[in-house]
Parts: sequence; C-alpha cells; structure tokens
Amino acid sequence: MWHQQEIRLPALARGFHLITERIVEAVPELAHCRVGLLHLQLQHTSASLTLNENADPDVRHDMDAFLRRLVPGDLPYFHHTLEGPDDMPAHVIASLLGTQLTLAVRDGRLALGTWQGIRLGEHRDHGGPRRLIITLNGET
Amino acid sequence: MWHQQEIRLPALARGFHLITERIVEAVPELAHCRVGLLHLQLQHTSASLTLNENADPDVRHDMDAFLRRLVPGDLPYFHHTLEGPDDMPAHVIASLLGTQLTLAVRDGRLALGTWQGIRLGEHRDHGGPRRLIITLNGET
Amino acid sequence: MWHQQEIRLPALARGFHLITERIVEAVPELAHCRVGLLHLQLQHTSASLTLNENADPDVRHDMDAFLRRLVPGDLPYFHHTLEGPDDMPAHVIASLLGTQLTLAVRDGRLALGTWQGIRLGEHRDHGGPRRLIITLNGET
Repeated sequence: MWHQQEIRLPALARGFHLITERIVEAVPELAHCRVGLLHLQLQHTSASLTLNENADPDVRHDMDAFLRRLVPGDLPYFHHTLEGPDDMPAHVIASLLGTQLTLAVRDGRLALGTWQGIRLGEHRDHGGPRRLIITLNGET
Repeated sequence: MWHQQEIRLPALARGFHLITERIVEAVPELAHCRVGLLHLQLQHTSASLTLNENADPDVRHDMDAFLRRLVPGDLPYFHHTLEGPDDMPAHVIASLLGTQLTLAVRDGRLALGTWQGIRLGEHRDHGGPRRLIITLNGET
Repeated sequence: MWHQQEIRLPALARGFHLITERIVEAVPELAHCRVGLLHLQLQHTSASLTLNENADPDVRHDMDAFLRRLVPGDLPYFHHTLEGPDDMPAHVIASLLGTQLTLAVRDGRLALGTWQGIRLGEHRDHGGPRRLIITLNGET
C-alpha cells in the first residue's frame, strides 16, 4: 500500500514542538499497515524534523538554546543577511538536523521508543505555517 | 518483500562503534533482496546512527572528541541536568547525527562504499543496551 | 516499481553544489511514478547530501564558511591527520549533514518545496569524483 498526503502545520514559535500526535491523527491509514515505513518531508529550508525526547520540555528548551548559540545571526562572514539575522542560522540548523524523517511502522503504529517523539524545529523568529508531505508505504 | 525485526545491542562505551557486521548477520533475508532499502531506527534519544569511515579507529576517536567539546555538559543555560551532565549533550548529539538511517540494497548486500560503515554513537557515559528496529523492503 | 542505478558526479570544488537537475535527468523513470520515494546515497565519507535553499548562492557560501570554522583542521586533539588537515573535518561534517536523503515523489516529480534543492557538500579540498546510488520505489 502507498498513501501520500500534504498537511499544513500552523505558525509556531521559534523552538521545538512535539508533533507526533498531529502526524498520527492525520494518517488513519497507519492503522491498517502491519509493517512499513512512514516518510515525512518538510517543504521548507528554515525548519527541521528530528526524533528526540518527548517528555521534559526542558530538553526542547536546552536544544534550542544550544543551537541559537552555535549558529548566531551576526557572524561577520555571513553574506545572506537581507532576510534578517535569524534567516541564515535557520538554514544552517535545518541542514544540521534535517528536514525529512523515515520512521518504522509496526502493527498499525509508529514503532517509536518510549521516549521518542517527532519534533518540528521552527528556526525562524516568525516562520509562518509549514507544509509537510507524508508518505506511507507498507503491507496490510 | 517486507521484513522487520528488533535487535538489541549490548551496552557499549561512550564513543563510536562499527556495527555493520552485526546488522548484516542479523538479517539473512538481505541475501534474497535484489534491489531495495534497509531502514534502521534506534529506539533511544541519546545514541545515534551514522554512516562514516570504517577503517581507522582514530576517525571514531576524533569525531567523539570533537562532539564532546562541541556540546559540553556544564553549559550554564541547560535546565535538563537531573540525569547528569552527559544527558543533555547526548540528546543534542543524537539529533545532530540522527537516530535512523536508510541504506541502499543491491544484489543481496548493502550497497556501501569501500570506506563506509554503520556506526552506533553511544553518547551517554553509561548508556546500557540499545534497541534497534530493522525494516527491509525490496524485490527478490 | 523498483529502479536502481549508480551515477558519478565529476570532481567539484570544496563547498555546496546544487545537483537537483542532475539527479532528475538521470532518472527518467521518475516520470512514471505516481507516488513513491527516491533514495540517494553517497558512496563516500567526506562529502554530504542535504536539502536546502536553491536560489541564493550566498546561502551555500555562508553554510560552507560556518562549517569550516565549526570544524577546523588543526584541532590539537585530532589523531587522524595523515590525509591532511581537511580530511578529519570532512568526516565530521559528512556525519553532521548526512550522506543519504529520502525524498517524496508525487505525480512523476520530486515533491520539493519552492525553495528546496538537493545539494552535494564537497568537504575535501580536492575530493575527486563522487559516486551516488539512486533507488526509486513507488507505484505507477
């Protein structure tokens, strides 16, 4: 079985946001998939997708705080500055974390570890809504 | 063909470990796959999977040494510190490197380059055993 | 449908290079795929594949400039130095950005966002030609 759809996430604040439930609810076809893979791809270059801790909000805070310092906006050798000091760092972070994820599906559910959640990283100050393509491939 | 299984890696020291042979030996079904993809997904948020140099142990040492300095454990703005100074860095590194890999399969084998090997990155001081879901999809 | 092939990219200068058109032209089978996934895997450990901004060359310049400073070649604790000061940084950057990508296919085309392009990151000073395995899986 193949299934593909596009969803739209509303504008979110800069930082990391758990979107596991939103993804799962958007794809009821998942329940019919015995074994397969779910692929997620952002349509953007200044936000990211990553699998990480799903419980303590401090982990999301600390990861964002670290990345803001790792890639500051005012590096003197940056040329791409017309879209604001948050834009070039957002591109760099999007490539460091990635904008697509492939996740195992087992018995109609995402085969995530106990502490794993899907996170959207919004790396712009005012990023706007984000579009995501979901592709499910597997056997029923 | 679809095939899926879960394997358990024993506790490994902090750093990078080649696990290519372990993966290949765990999936004899690979030999029957003419063309396909092998997907690996850790069930954890403080270890990583990455494809990199398979020969010189110094490369594994240097990459770990670099990442320890890139994400130190005592950053004053880290809030998530209850699980020890190695925990928050491990979460950050897991997202920088990733916790899943998709690998090409050709003629019954992983289509790796001469110098490519699958590496588990253990980013905790005492990480314990790690579970991994292997999903193979392809045609015979 | 499954389709797999290997392509060879000519030697490119250190930095980031857009290869979207080159990939698409190499795989005419893409046009027959209604929904699917295209997987790309470099056969090397000192170059990378990433999805990022496809328009302004400054973004590619800035990302390379940032990564060169993030992972300098003369770190005193690097042991793997026999292949030159650009080699160990190239291995680190290859793992930070990744050497494989999985991309959504829709209606015979890559389902990329308006500003998304596939980039090859060449992280060696004189990297030579790079081999890439392309695997397409989908339904017609």
